[in-house]
Amino acid sequence: MTKPTPLSGFPEFLPAQRFVEQQVIATLARAFELHGFANVETRAVEPMDQLLRKGDTSKEVYVLRRLQEEDGGRDAGMGLHFDLTVPFARYVLENAGKLEFPFRRYQIQKVWRGERPQEGRFREFTQADIDIVGKDVLPFHHDVEVTRVMLDALAQLAGSDSIGLPGFRLQVNNRKLIQGFYAALGAPDVDEVMRLIDKLDKLPVAEVKKLLVGEAGLTDEQADRCLGLATISAGDDSFVERVRALGVSGELLEEGLDELATLIRACAPLNTDKVSVIADLSIARGLDYYTGTVFETRLDGYESLGSICSGGRYDALASDGRTTYPGVGISLGVSRVLVPLVQRGFLTADRQVPSVVLVALNDEESRPAADATATALRARGIACEVAATAAKFGKQIRFAERRGIPYVWFDTAEGHQVKDIRSGNQVAADAATWEPPKADLRPSVVVATDASTGDN
Amino acid sequence: MTKPTPLSGFPEFLPAQRFVEQQVIATLARAFELHGFANVETRAVEPMDQLLRKGDTSKEVYVLRRLQEEDGGRDAGMGLHFDLTVPFARYVLENAGKLEFPFRRYQIQKVWRGERPQEGRFREFTQADIDIVGKDVLPFHHDVEVTRVMLDALAQLAGSDSIGLPGFRLQVNNRKLIQGFYAALGAPDVDEVMRLIDKLDKLPVAEVKKLLVGEAGLTDEQADRCLGLATISAGDDSFVERVRALGVSGELLEEGLDELATLIRACAPLNTDKVSVIADLSIARGLDYYTGTVFETRLDGYESLGSICSGGRYDALASDGRTTYPGVGISLGVSRVLVPLVQRGFLTADRQVPSVVLVALNDEESRPAADATATALRARGIACEVAATAAKFGKQIRFAERRGIPYVWFDTAEGHQVKDIRSGNQVAADAATWEPPKADLRPSVVVATDASTGDN
Repeated sequence: MTKPTPLSGFPEFLPAQRFVEQQVIATLARAFELHGFANVETRAVEPMDQLLRKGDTSKEVYVLRRLQEEDGGRDAGMGLHFDLTVPFARYVLENAGKLEFPFRRYQIQKVWRGERPQEGRFREFTQADIDIVGKDVLPFHHDVEVTRVMLDALAQLAGSDSIGLPGFRLQVNNRKLIQGFYAALGAPDVDEVMRLIDKLDKLPVAEVKKLLVGEAGLTDEQADRCLGLATISAGDDSFVERVRALGVSGELLEEGLDELATLIRACAPLNTDKVSVIADLSIARGLDYYTGTVFETRLDGYESLGSICSGGRYDALASDGRTTYPGVGISLGVSRVLVPLVQRGFLTADRQVPSVVLVALNDEESRPAADATATALRARGIACEVAATAAKFGKQIRFAERRGIPYVWFDTAEGHQVKDIRSGNQVAADAATWEPPKADLRPSVVVATDASTGDN
Repeated sequence: MTKPTPLSGFPEFLPAQRFVEQQVIATLARAFELHGFANVETRAVEPMDQLLRKGDTSKEVYVLRRLQEEDGGRDAGMGLHFDLTVPFARYVLENAGKLEFPFRRYQIQKVWRGERPQEGRFREFTQADIDIVGKDVLPFHHDVEVTRVMLDALAQLAGSDSIGLPGFRLQVNNRKLIQGFYAALGAPDVDEVMRLIDKLDKLPVAEVKKLLVGEAGLTDEQADRCLGLATISAGDDSFVERVRALGVSGELLEEGLDELATLIRACAPLNTDKVSVIADLSIARGLDYYTGTVFETRLDGYESLGSICSGGRYDALASDGRTTYPGVGISLGVSRVLVPLVQRGFLTADRQVPSVVLVALNDEESRPAADATATALRARGIACEVAATAAKFGKQIRFAERRGIPYVWFDTAEGHQVKDIRSGNQVAADAATWEPPKADLRPSVVVATDASTGDN
């Protein structure tokens, strides 16, 4: 076998890079659990008819076939899930009788899309989703709750006193607000206006205006007011007065304004210099079936990645015809954030291995004694490995150095000693009692200061 | 959408069951890390030519196709991995220049096989693999090491003072021993003898003997000695004398005897009443390409599941033509062990949610105050949720009860109080200082005593 080449769109990490990803996932999981979210893992595979319910992603689905299968065999009609919402909705329906509602779950899994690979777009990637699902009803305060949970989780990732990711800016809007606005304004096709306004991050304003008039049938003046609405953003509830100043009113609009203002007021106290939530009335989330709150999120310095954390409220996440399950959720693109940061060298770990200690070997015959030392250290939670060969000590130390292992343990004529190979400091030690400083116990994420970072 | 039905062979867990799986995976990961094993995650997809290198599993591979793809498109020729060894060998070759050898890695991921589903056989399942890979050489002491690491990990799972799984019996043999024995005996086709001896767990001895004579060309007396060898097992190195008593000798046989005796002597001290390692000379591992040590493992009371943890030594785990990477590894079938135990109700968790505390609501207006209490508890690592509605307290308590949440927090006229709803005990409490007993901080795995367990 010749040296294999990477498959484009299927990112993989080296061990130190994978450690960063593990830390990020563990941090997210812990944050979600502190808010009472239970973990769920669904199978990777769903029936094709479920995957194709949303027409616009059908071309991205990977279909499965057994190698020896005739057409229409028992595995026909299955594909890999392309998000965690479709399988979760199916899981809720399948297990509704065994779940307690409102049901809070988090799910951190890989998903697959047969897309053309490009920066920040992968064919296999990890997402971290939180959702709250109700039975028949789900009060609006749960919209506030998921926002606060995700803000809390992102705050654990951002900043140098945590994992060290760049800051996150969560942008929130409300479909009732914008749809109510367009309807009150007399737009003949509200959904079409929303679809065109969603293009503002790709097209110039003048171009979108032309489309609003030409395709959505708005007058010049109506188009200007829709574009005016989309320019409004604020970190507090001052956006309400700015919307009112546009001179449009209606029941649905008021309901949306009230919901969004409530959410912003409840979340503003969680803002830090690294994580913030703002009302941004340009956010629409295109063709997705949201019915109220909608979220997008930008990563500071990496705005070209687009939204790395999106979601919203579905009045019918799932339905079996008799019972409807409304939901509100938000999905963080773990790979979308991490792969660029890790591949550009912005984030790594200070070790390639979990080992805190390399137990050096005097000679091959002393391996059982070295194993006993290692066993004593492990019994107290200190990860270690025994040297692979009884090479010269200098070579064993360099072996530890190359892996980033901070301590080497020696069994000397003067008794056991442990050397901090960063400082060169060597002291007498007993495997039954010695402890490394807490900061050395596990590998740490390292934020490179000299790596090329961000969009510029 | 009508109520979906489960897909046979794709097991999924309810939240409390998933908690058991999370605990098992976290326990394994921690054990592997204490021994210096780094985590690696490979993509789910490999090129078909890699997946088909071992002819005998080809029929089980799931092939991928994009829905809109013409034949021979850019995603043609990819399939889902059916184990973690093939992708790991590819990963080692692809990243050899960036890895330090001997390279210890653990990998816990799902794999897929298009098999006909049956008890203990799934089409999607989780495996936990450890391997040590060398560059050009890998000393035998690493065979001892992986055995000890897996014994250590299994000991963390078995028994009522840990996760509560049944006991594990690790059976070890050595290909050099049995192949050397058959060769020294004059068997015309050593591999064929091994393949037939491997059938002893499915066919009666007399039947296997008939095959050894009829298909492997052995004399009656040779066949008896091969079958005699396969009856030998021992928890110590006494098997060596019993093999010698069969009156066969040869260089390869001696090497195998020496390796197996070394391994058993080094591992015997780790035996407990729940986890043990024995030399079992009937173990052959069929057609797999092992070249020395081979492992199988039985779960006490669930012997019908077959081997739930298998592996061995490959002298060439991977090779790029110039460099060869020998490896030794062992793979635990996490789903194979857990799915039957969980589905039969033998293992579950005492809660459906991570929450330790439900913060009760006096009325909807007091939600911000309840949120503040919850925030204070979370800041000290206490998972909690705020009641979904301000129902009567009795109803809020029953809500907590149904989820297994042990404490309900009240904001009363006499100040804050917390009730242990198991004992009914209610005490004054301050969210800034109150702590639950450590045992309540996270959900616990519960071993049912009345569930139908095991094979009988």
